[in-house]
Amino acid sequence: MKQIADLLFEARMLKDLKRSGYAFLGNGSESVAEHCFSTVFICFVMARLTPEIDGERLTAMALVHDMAEARTGDFNYVQKKYAKVDEASAMAHFTRDLPFAPDILSLMTEFNACETPEAQLARDADQLSFILELKKLKDTGAAFPDRWLEVIMDRLKTDLGRQMAGSILETRWDDWWMNGYTE
Amino acid sequence: MKQIADLLFEARMLKDLKRSGYAFLGNGSESVAEHCFSTVFICFVMARLTPEIDGERLTAMALVHDMAEARTGDFNYVQKKYAKVDEASAMAHFTRDLPFAPDILSLMTEFNACETPEAQLARDADQLSFILELKKLKDTGAAFPDRWLEVIMDRLKTDLGRQMAGSILETRWDDWWMNGYTE
Amino acid sequence: MKQIADLLFEARMLKDLKRSGYAFLGNGSESVAEHCFSTVFICFVMARLTPEIDGERLTAMALVHDMAEARTGDFNYVQKKYAKVDEASAMAHFTRDLPFAPDILSLMTEFNACETPEAQLARDADQLSFILELKKLKDTGAAFPDRWLEVIMDRLKTDLGRQMAGSILETRWDDWWMNGYTE
Amino acid sequence: MKQIADLLFEARMLKDLKRSGYAFLGNGSESVAEHCFSTVFICFVMARLTPEIDGERLTAMALVHDMAEARTGDFNYVQKKYAKVDEASAMAHFTRDLPFAPDILSLMTEFNACETPEAQLARDADQLSFILELKKLKDTGAAFPDRWLEVIMDRLKTDLGRQMAGSILETRWDDWWMNGYTE
Amino acid sequence: MKQIADLLFEARMLKDLKRSGYAFLGNGSESVAEHCFSTVFICFVMARLTPEIDGERLTAMALVHDMAEARTGDFNYVQKKYAKVDEASAMAHFTRDLPFAPDILSLMTEFNACETPEAQLARDADQLSFILELKKLKDTGAAFPDRWLEVIMDRLKTDLGRQMAGSILETRWDDWWMNGYTE
Amino acid sequence: MKQIADLLFEARMLKDLKRSGYAFLGNGSESVAEHCFSTVFICFVMARLTPEIDGERLTAMALVHDMAEARTGDFNYVQKKYAKVDEASAMAHFTRDLPFAPDILSLMTEFNACETPEAQLARDADQLSFILELKKLKDTGAAFPDRWLEVIMDRLKTDLGRQMAGSILETRWDDWWMNGYTE
Repeated sequence: MKQIADLLFEARMLKDLKRSGYAFLGNGSESVAEHCFSTVFICFVMARLTPEIDGERLTAMALVHDMAEARTGDFNYVQKKYAKVDEASAMAHFTRDLPFAPDILSLMTEFNACETPEAQLARDADQLSFILELKKLKDTGAAFPDRWLEVIMDRLKTDLGRQMAGSILETRWDDWWMNGYTE
Repeated sequence: MKQIADLLFEARMLKDLKRSGYAFLGNGSESVAEHCFSTVFICFVMARLTPEIDGERLTAMALVHDMAEARTGDFNYVQKKYAKVDEASAMAHFTRDLPFAPDILSLMTEFNACETPEAQLARDADQLSFILELKKLKDTGAAFPDRWLEVIMDRLKTDLGRQMAGSILETRWDDWWMNGYTE
Repeated sequence: MKQIADLLFEARMLKDLKRSGYAFLGNGSESVAEHCFSTVFICFVMARLTPEIDGERLTAMALVHDMAEARTGDFNYVQKKYAKVDEASAMAHFTRDLPFAPDILSLMTEFNACETPEAQLARDADQLSFILELKKLKDTGAAFPDRWLEVIMDRLKTDLGRQMAGSILETRWDDWWMNGYTE
Repeated sequence: MKQIADLLFEARMLKDLKRSGYAFLGNGSESVAEHCFSTVFICFVMARLTPEIDGERLTAMALVHDMAEARTGDFNYVQKKYAKVDEASAMAHFTRDLPFAPDILSLMTEFNACETPEAQLARDADQLSFILELKKLKDTGAAFPDRWLEVIMDRLKTDLGRQMAGSILETRWDDWWMNGYTE
Repeated sequence: MKQIADLLFEARMLKDLKRSGYAFLGNGSESVAEHCFSTVFICFVMARLTPEIDGERLTAMALVHDMAEARTGDFNYVQKKYAKVDEASAMAHFTRDLPFAPDILSLMTEFNACETPEAQLARDADQLSFILELKKLKDTGAAFPDRWLEVIMDRLKTDLGRQMAGSILETRWDDWWMNGYTE
Repeated sequence: MKQIADLLFEARMLKDLKRSGYAFLGNGSESVAEHCFSTVFICFVMARLTPEIDGERLTAMALVHDMAEARTGDFNYVQKKYAKVDEASAMAHFTRDLPFAPDILSLMTEFNACETPEAQLARDADQLSFILELKKLKDTGAAFPDRWLEVIMDRLKTDLGRQMAGSILETRWDDWWMNGYTE
């Protein structure tokens, strides 16, 4: 059980790590844990829109996709050019000799290979999670998101991902509670 | 798809809501989204430690268990005494006429009834997520956690939850990276 | 005196509670205590502009109008649709068997009834305090305030309140120190 | 009315100014507006405990006692040794040719002279507001407050102030909601 | 050595002091230490662009130019009108009977006199440091910087300072990493 | 001049990057720019205590020692185990074809080689800057610094560095203004 406690404290470190991209955008802030929550929920929704895929594996991939960052830190576009990150070693240390280590490691391998439909959806969810943030920043007055939204739209790999992204861009971030507003 | 975009923006609101209990503790801070991420991960681990339970439903319950808070806000122990929250109505508005609304609503119903083994584990994960925060605060110098840790330990409902909690309390929050420290 | 110390600690909790509306606006931040300070000062000014009203009661109403929030939390427009708050019970516990409990409770009752001229001015001050924040956010680059300013203007109940609001909207938030700027 | 709008924006600046002492203490944070709110409420309570004094003047003094800081900034113990502040000029500019300027200025004069019972209570309330913060910091794990609490206790000028301070020091900051805690 | 330790703790206080101007601008935040770092680096660059000046004295002036603020606080444009600051006394206490006190004090004297080429460049660097912040705020959506940029441009004293400022205004704050962006 | 503007914006990025170690300590916060400011000032003092060394090169090394982090990010002890950072490439891009590129690059090379007395002092200043933070955190109630202070003391390479560190540990962080306190 001591090993489980260590595992949980390592995962909770993602709450204390800020995603490094926002410093470069100049607005916004998000912890890695918040990003992961959002990515998992997007996968949960994707699974319900495409019943033919394996929803459990899809959401599980999203849940663990950034776990290595507890040990490696979070790298944005610029930082990735200069830092070669040994994610495999970080994941090996994260899972140590846990009985379910192979389970977590195979999720990471599948996500990184980006070949199965589930992995492609999980990676699109990772981008959609960022698109939600950029759209909110745009709607509330930030000046930069359009440049970035274009770049990120090009990263999407699935039709479903592109449809969801298109719809996010046409929706105000506060429509869900502002529509039908009455005093 | 517009309805899906609204749904995702509503879920992302949990990033912008702080858990209200920390103001009363006087230390610490956590968004609802961060709390949910941590709870989902604990359930993911629980599922691997108890293969006989339905891991997909367990983690899905954890993922949606606080979704109503996007509309209702987060209530701590004191606030719950004075506010009667219509969570059912908030969840109905959250899921609107989505085709998978019944799926989400049945997860909420099961979580709230707290009768199935999965629901009981999910609720323990909800408390364990808080115990991790209190243990970190205690290890880093905050003065109050012991009083609260006692209260929260009593809320646990399963043997696995109690074992995990016991182990968390005996583990320093930074053991996962401090043990074996060498320069 | 112990009871007085408890009372003061309860009132100071309003410093640690953020007004919940700003998360929904996506910009800005304000504690409940800051909002109350601003509301009291607006009432202080109103009292000097309308000598026929009872200025002491007006400012006292503003001072205590959000005291229940120490126990109930602060509810924005969306949250109020889902949470039924027992403010009366919170105020009863706040004032307990203090000798001057009836004094505080009658101020709350008058404020909530919104019938006396003082109560109507106090409620307009509550809105004017928010209008000042929205105007500052607008002047400094936030994208949303116009939508909200319209809604809030409609809530005003007195001629004085409307005159003050109109003037606030025509004034830049930094005119008080920028006008006549010289190096 | 333009002049009133300027006045309100000037007063709201106190929300954006942090009290400068906390940087020197190394823990805690409070805006000038939050400090003023707390001071006004303490005076409101003092007025109810000592019916023979003029409660309206007492709370009004507390409300305006730091208004000059919108123009001058907030000075802690160390900073006051090096900065000579022209508070009178700041207050003259704050009130300009408002019809009720004399009213505000006479409150400031009375507060600064510290001779009337109301002024002495208002100044004690100013200190009690700080004592509440230090006691909270002490109860939640900060290491320094005892040194400061001694110093500040010596600043108190009235019996009522000393009684209230004594009681605050004997009360945990969270007694008001923790006493009688039941799950 | 005790005196050196005190000196270093006094200098590190500049990390905990926020520059007071940003509250009046309504956006942005910067510690005095961050401002000083930026000013020193600008001087380092200036020295390499103008080999005929004394680079060591130029950067040293930038390093100590705000040291008095650890004792006096930081004063913005408005606050300076109302506060007479005894910087000389603060610097005397900062340097006490250190053997190298005359060294630091002569740097301050030269900086304040603003007559030598090095002092004029150091003062321009002080303004350029602020121009960099305003340009970033403008590029990321803040509404006010143009008004201020005009005022500050007029403060510049050297040709090099004006050339650098002109170039900063024509450069997006993120060009250094965005130009040549490829996925 | 465009190239200079880019250079300055790149250096100012260090204001927006937080040092990553504090998330692992669980208390405290510091930007890379603040750390650099403190390190430069410590070198400035070291130069005055050891006149035989080249003070200009010593402080210049401290000024640029973390410049690569604008592109690579800041790596703490744990992260360094998993990320191989190409600092040389980051510095090459930072200095591009600036006429004074060789000047900056040779400072980096000297700092990294850690052989000259100046480089050894600069590296000790880097650690002393961190020791000042840990001592402040310890003095204000944080629970962890002792473990870390031991580790960091062992990193020091010079007699002067060890003397300064020893003195810092024996000095309260607020002695510089608390000693001789009088009301």
